[in-house]
Amino acid sequence: MKIGFIGLGNMGAPMASNLLKAGHELTVFDLDQAAVDKAVTEGATAADGLGDISTGDVELIITMLPAAQHVRSVYLGEDGLLASVARGVHLIDSSTIDPMTAREVAARAADQGNPMLDAPVSGGTGGAQAGTLTFMVGGEDEEFAFARPVLANMGKNIVHCGAAGNGQVAKMANNMLLGISMIGAAEAMSLGVAMGMDPEVLAGVINTSSGRCWSTDTYNPYPGVIETAPSNRGYTGGFGMDLMIKDLGLATEAAKTARQPVIMGALAQQLYQGMSFEGHGGLDFSAIIKRYLKEPE
Amino acid sequence: MKIGFIGLGNMGAPMASNLLKAGHELTVFDLDQAAVDKAVTEGATAADGLGDISTGDVELIITMLPAAQHVRSVYLGEDGLLASVARGVHLIDSSTIDPMTAREVAARAADQGNPMLDAPVSGGTGGAQAGTLTFMVGGEDEEFAFARPVLANMGKNIVHCGAAGNGQVAKMANNMLLGISMIGAAEAMSLGVAMGMDPEVLAGVINTSSGRCWSTDTYNPYPGVIETAPSNRGYTGGFGMDLMIKDLGLATEAAKTARQPVIMGALAQQLYQGMSFEGHGGLDFSAIIKRYLKEPE
Amino acid sequence: MKIGFIGLGNMGAPMASNLLKAGHELTVFDLDQAAVDKAVTEGATAADGLGDISTGDVELIITMLPAAQHVRSVYLGEDGLLASVARGVHLIDSSTIDPMTAREVAARAADQGNPMLDAPVSGGTGGAQAGTLTFMVGGEDEEFAFARPVLANMGKNIVHCGAAGNGQVAKMANNMLLGISMIGAAEAMSLGVAMGMDPEVLAGVINTSSGRCWSTDTYNPYPGVIETAPSNRGYTGGFGMDLMIKDLGLATEAAKTARQPVIMGALAQQLYQGMSFEGHGGLDFSAIIKRYLKEPE
Amino acid sequence: MKIGFIGLGNMGAPMASNLLKAGHELTVFDLDQAAVDKAVTEGATAADGLGDISTGDVELIITMLPAAQHVRSVYLGEDGLLASVARGVHLIDSSTIDPMTAREVAARAADQGNPMLDAPVSGGTGGAQAGTLTFMVGGEDEEFAFARPVLANMGKNIVHCGAAGNGQVAKMANNMLLGISMIGAAEAMSLGVAMGMDPEVLAGVINTSSGRCWSTDTYNPYPGVIETAPSNRGYTGGFGMDLMIKDLGLATEAAKTARQPVIMGALAQQLYQGMSFEGHGGLDFSAIIKRYLKEPE
Repeated sequence: MKIGFIGLGNMGAPMASNLLKAGHELTVFDLDQAAVDKAVTEGATAADGLGDISTGDVELIITMLPAAQHVRSVYLGEDGLLASVARGVHLIDSSTIDPMTAREVAARAADQGNPMLDAPVSGGTGGAQAGTLTFMVGGEDEEFAFARPVLANMGKNIVHCGAAGNGQVAKMANNMLLGISMIGAAEAMSLGVAMGMDPEVLAGVINTSSGRCWSTDTYNPYPGVIETAPSNRGYTGGFGMDLMIKDLGLATEAAKTARQPVIMGALAQQLYQGMSFEGHGGLDFSAIIKRYLKEPE
Repeated sequence: MKIGFIGLGNMGAPMASNLLKAGHELTVFDLDQAAVDKAVTEGATAADGLGDISTGDVELIITMLPAAQHVRSVYLGEDGLLASVARGVHLIDSSTIDPMTAREVAARAADQGNPMLDAPVSGGTGGAQAGTLTFMVGGEDEEFAFARPVLANMGKNIVHCGAAGNGQVAKMANNMLLGISMIGAAEAMSLGVAMGMDPEVLAGVINTSSGRCWSTDTYNPYPGVIETAPSNRGYTGGFGMDLMIKDLGLATEAAKTARQPVIMGALAQQLYQGMSFEGHGGLDFSAIIKRYLKEPE
Repeated sequence: MKIGFIGLGNMGAPMASNLLKAGHELTVFDLDQAAVDKAVTEGATAADGLGDISTGDVELIITMLPAAQHVRSVYLGEDGLLASVARGVHLIDSSTIDPMTAREVAARAADQGNPMLDAPVSGGTGGAQAGTLTFMVGGEDEEFAFARPVLANMGKNIVHCGAAGNGQVAKMANNMLLGISMIGAAEAMSLGVAMGMDPEVLAGVINTSSGRCWSTDTYNPYPGVIETAPSNRGYTGGFGMDLMIKDLGLATEAAKTARQPVIMGALAQQLYQGMSFEGHGGLDFSAIIKRYLKEPE
Repeated sequence: MKIGFIGLGNMGAPMASNLLKAGHELTVFDLDQAAVDKAVTEGATAADGLGDISTGDVELIITMLPAAQHVRSVYLGEDGLLASVARGVHLIDSSTIDPMTAREVAARAADQGNPMLDAPVSGGTGGAQAGTLTFMVGGEDEEFAFARPVLANMGKNIVHCGAAGNGQVAKMANNMLLGISMIGAAEAMSLGVAMGMDPEVLAGVINTSSGRCWSTDTYNPYPGVIETAPSNRGYTGGFGMDLMIKDLGLATEAAKTARQPVIMGALAQQLYQGMSFEGHGGLDFSAIIKRYLKEPE
């Protein structure tokens, strides 16, 4: 398939690579020329600008951008995609943004005959490279059916979450719960150890009981419990705390719009924000446990 | 084995029944005569008082009491167990209390030659009746080995958590995390649905992703998601909110003693307390989601 | 002075009236024709549109709008004020918005030769009518000196808070603290009364001690303590809870931008949001005490 | 008057000194012999033990002890005051403890004919030395009338808060609100300064507006704003953070007993606890602002 791909950052670049490996023809665009050059060496064609992508004979355009303002600009800007793209070209935005913007852009696209999906991912740069991302997809059934095989070249778990924007809603809800349960795990592990328990024994009890969660059985923040977790390598790699803060910001903003309270979600956002404020924003988000350990690891 | 059993409440009564069914000889005591009478019809012998139990030729005494003050009184009171029990008799306290008290009582017992275990349970009245409780046990290795077969007559998961008091620590840490992640689950489910997602689809995404926890995959607070959860029967049965408040109270009290912060744990305690304050303390603790749903179920 | 005035809502209308009473010539604009008609009966001239105001020979234009998006549109929109206003005309925005937007608009205005102040108010509709508002003003010294006499026709306390945007910062910081201390007052009064104290005696102790704050000595949320407070008239009138939620939203958003944690501020926002969610958003914000009283007043 | 005085710590010692200066005859007791010796040099008589005080011909006994467990032991212990004191001797406990214990002890005293007041103080060691303490007093009217002149030898503000225990309730409620509003002040000042305001200007705005509180106008946590505040001397002296944690612990414990939620109060307790955990428990409680400042002072 002829595909336009916009946004070759830490996530976008390996996603584009996987599409190329799967045999698709890619026209790519990024403001960073080095990223474009690298994609060209892998077989992609460099576009001169957004207009160059959308006026070509691509069937599908995929975007992977940092935040809502970029999505808004790339799609709705004066020289943006919607101003030049041919009717019928399919659109997929894999950026993580708020559902309200996702819905507005999708509605504008649909109005002019371009079916659009929101398809944010989880799995991090590791998953992007390995092609094992999870895609949470919002949009029409038939559009989901069309996009699925392409997304399957970049991920292994492709979930249809309902109408436009619901991919964003699903990711936002999941990550808010993740952010909360990680702090819960940090407090429970720290308190238990401070009261005299061995961390591995405590994790063993919790993981076979009702406190069990991904943050304890797969990504335990206490050092020495899960070999593959960032807590065993100084909280490097993994899912950056500043990204968690961004996702919690999306959730509390959506909650404000929906006039829905998210008491724990907002507290979690502030607690991570406090750690970032003290200079730890680049660590994995499980480093929040440093707040609760006598000797920070 | 000849066993003394003190405390025939909602939990203690079925636990004693299971011991009788397993062939043990039981001498029982409770302030509620009806509870004693019922145990007698099942084959137990009624004790005249605490002294009558501890001066008999029992090998083991098990207590199942509501709170630390009762444990303190039954063991350490002027006419309490330690004042009359013969040297060498084994002691097991299955009450859920703070680790500090558990350790103090165990130390006093050990000092006079009575090995003691703390062995709080999870699994509720259903688990007590079915004999499928989980026992979290603190105490010496050899004492754990001695008690394990007896505990196995009342439960199916018998976990050694370390030295005296650690059974209490493990339960407290697990339940604090449970109390936090349940509110997290309530907020994430409610926000997602308010933003337009189907609750079952949302639970499906979360349960295969990093937000996954017991509170979403086994006990989801949103009605209609997990057939067997209290959310599908008006939040009746299950684990009462006032019991969750008690357990979170033990955790924040222990944290105060350990000079350890538990920010989310303390917030969770207050949020459940607020629901109880409005009259919902008798519902299952997952009814906390009522705070976040437009039309309370 | 010839003044243009845009935004004749609950606050803007009485502010414009006071300017007319003080002898200024006003050209007014609002999308609500009835509001314009009323101002005309008081002596104002109706403008045909934004352009009609900014192209006239006004020396000063004042805006009083609901939110940042309106400020952005009125000033920066295609047909907005900055597109048509003559160089040298003074601008004052009295809307309550985030400091970032206030600074951006002021910078754009300054670039084209229009000195601009941000001057949000406190004092509510009562203060607007009585001409006793407080103005918190951000901008250059000489511009503040120019505007002060005009603002003094609408308010009695005109405070210079520093450079552009600082009026918004001051209001935001003050109102965040207000939102927090009101919940603190609600909890302290409710707990004290629940533990057996008379509310007036308790308020008396606090108001002569270190817990003293505006929320206890002037606006006490407990009914019967301060005769003039909304708590004595069913929490009607006063400062609406949804407005407090808006102001706390501005504060948490600014904190996100500044990468500064505001743990209590974010929690306060959610607690008011929870009350609004249950249908109390139209009451005075001190109605948050209903969460803590057995029988809501 | 002949007075027995028990507890010559940081607070009790200067209080006893002031009673001696006022001409009373004091018999004193403390476990710390040096403290007793010092009081003797000032004119007091040393008692051999608790019994020696209560069996003398004192009219009034005053106690100033660290915590509820000491009050319980001194009054209700086997060799405690109530076991030996003559009928009719007046009792005043100035310790800061939970209201439940205060009421229990007062009831036991009243039962045997000893009228008792709870009279916790505020004002710190400075106030104790200067004789300017505030006494918050719970107990009968006539007993308050009897005690007032004696208390006036140690303080200048003697407030009757109602029946037994209400002195404790008043102090607890006031200090909980203080603990909350101090964190609110810290967040508001820090956010405002981070967004570009001068701290003195910001404090000026708040102190003439609705965010005004003792924590901003008298004890501002931001360095350089209030000359006499601990923030201007490295947060030394003042009201220790660990004492604030103790008082918030009393409040959350009372709330648990009253089944009353205190959401902000519990969060405040944990935030101070977190600072203490990191080693700042000995600083003035306004040092909580370190959490929010880029360069801790």
